[in-house]
Amino acid sequence: MNPIGVFDSGIGGLTVLKALTDELPSESFVYFGDTARVPYGTKSEPVVKQFALQDSLFLLKHDVKLIVVACNSASSVALDFLKQRLALPVIGVIKPGAEAALDAAPDKPIGIIGTRATIASGAYQRALKSLKPDIEFTAQPCPLFVPLVEEGLTAGEIPKVVVEHYLHPLKEAGIGALILGCTHYPLLKSIIAEYFGDEVIIIDSAAATAQKVKAELAVRGMLADEETSRSINFFASDISPGFVEQSRLFFGGELPQVEKVEFEVADFWV
Amino acid sequence: MNPIGVFDSGIGGLTVLKALTDELPSESFVYFGDTARVPYGTKSEPVVKQFALQDSLFLLKHDVKLIVVACNSASSVALDFLKQRLALPVIGVIKPGAEAALDAAPDKPIGIIGTRATIASGAYQRALKSLKPDIEFTAQPCPLFVPLVEEGLTAGEIPKVVVEHYLHPLKEAGIGALILGCTHYPLLKSIIAEYFGDEVIIIDSAAATAQKVKAELAVRGMLADEETSRSINFFASDISPGFVEQSRLFFGGELPQVEKVEFEVADFWV
Repeated sequence: MNPIGVFDSGIGGLTVLKALTDELPSESFVYFGDTARVPYGTKSEPVVKQFALQDSLFLLKHDVKLIVVACNSASSVALDFLKQRLALPVIGVIKPGAEAALDAAPDKPIGIIGTRATIASGAYQRALKSLKPDIEFTAQPCPLFVPLVEEGLTAGEIPKVVVEHYLHPLKEAGIGALILGCTHYPLLKSIIAEYFGDEVIIIDSAAATAQKVKAELAVRGMLADEETSRSINFFASDISPGFVEQSRLFFGGELPQVEKVEFEVADFWV
Repeated sequence: MNPIGVFDSGIGGLTVLKALTDELPSESFVYFGDTARVPYGTKSEPVVKQFALQDSLFLLKHDVKLIVVACNSASSVALDFLKQRLALPVIGVIKPGAEAALDAAPDKPIGIIGTRATIASGAYQRALKSLKPDIEFTAQPCPLFVPLVEEGLTAGEIPKVVVEHYLHPLKEAGIGALILGCTHYPLLKSIIAEYFGDEVIIIDSAAATAQKVKAELAVRGMLADEETSRSINFFASDISPGFVEQSRLFFGGELPQVEKVEFEVADFWV
């Protein structure tokens, strides 16, 4: 009966929440976006670990039964750190994304794009190698993609020159699949797909992560009763300008009307 | 004998610290950059106020005699809030920047660029009006400029198309001076100057702010003895990747070797 907890550095993780609510229609969710301290992807490993632990403790106060680390940067550097400390299942987005990429293009090089923190951590690279030791991949940090998406610049000349700037080496490498290793990047999917053409399959970890969460709950006998009426609660550390509009964008439509939706400023630093 | 405190959302404020150390060669300084929670310019007013107060309280622990709010976003929304709470002089960068712009182009419209928070606050607009009630100005948020600078993309095609995207309305308005209302923007000065040509005088608030700090200390009889040996202490809430290299860039050269320079992670959120 307890909800699933989901956290992200901000609101990008709503793309993951959407996939979870689609895959698990009877489950309740508590989402926390650390919008006061966003982004995580430009910050150091110790700080991201500390933030991730605080975010998780906030979710624990809401009696969650499982935590999804929707943020790629936090999944990359803090997942094991959280698993060692928390007595409940913690699932990140890295391994499901790597598996989906390998399924999509088993015999071609894989491209990985993400924030500086995600790429520098080598988490996707390790996950791919553990699945296929002789795998080839090209990893590229794309730090301007998040601000582009947050400014709504997802089409036109500016994102076009930025996409070419970052993705040129991946095209050269002849990748067969591209992992969008950041929750913001699905909003640039059209312009990225246009750049690569039909040759490259674009992988968004959200759906794969949702399937893994379902499997994990099933194994543990923790799936919600199908008759349960679900609730979805949203929390954020800042209601920053444009928050509501951006939230709708990432969630892929209106936030559910009939369910309980609550915005609240967390009080970490009072 | 006490040092001057300077804080910023990150390391951009080192451009202001540099101007202060040039203008006040006998003064000691304590600098705090909130690199774990940077940026401030995309966040809400209540959160920026809270962060600015925490930053100031950190500086107070180091017995500062005056606080310089080097961050334009914090100066815009939190200066009065700090002044009402702190029993020491607090100086922001807005008013000195507005005065310098009016001196430079007394009879032409003024352009103002900054983060969303700075422009939305109307702080520069109010400061200009208080100096000249019938002044004309055009204000434009340029949210991609900070990530461009932080990625080192200050020349070439990408900043060129972004500069045109944001600054076109200011060119149309026939401005005579442009206030760089963000500590990061001086690093884009060349490409901005190239876009406008010689017609527009570009104003960086740092030097004007340093002069104001000197005047304020003189009036209060709080200037350091000329014989004093100075110290400069740096603190940051995160030593993020690229921190040292970026610090040198913003400080405009090597950090002073002979003086005490210290990097330390603040413990706000332990």
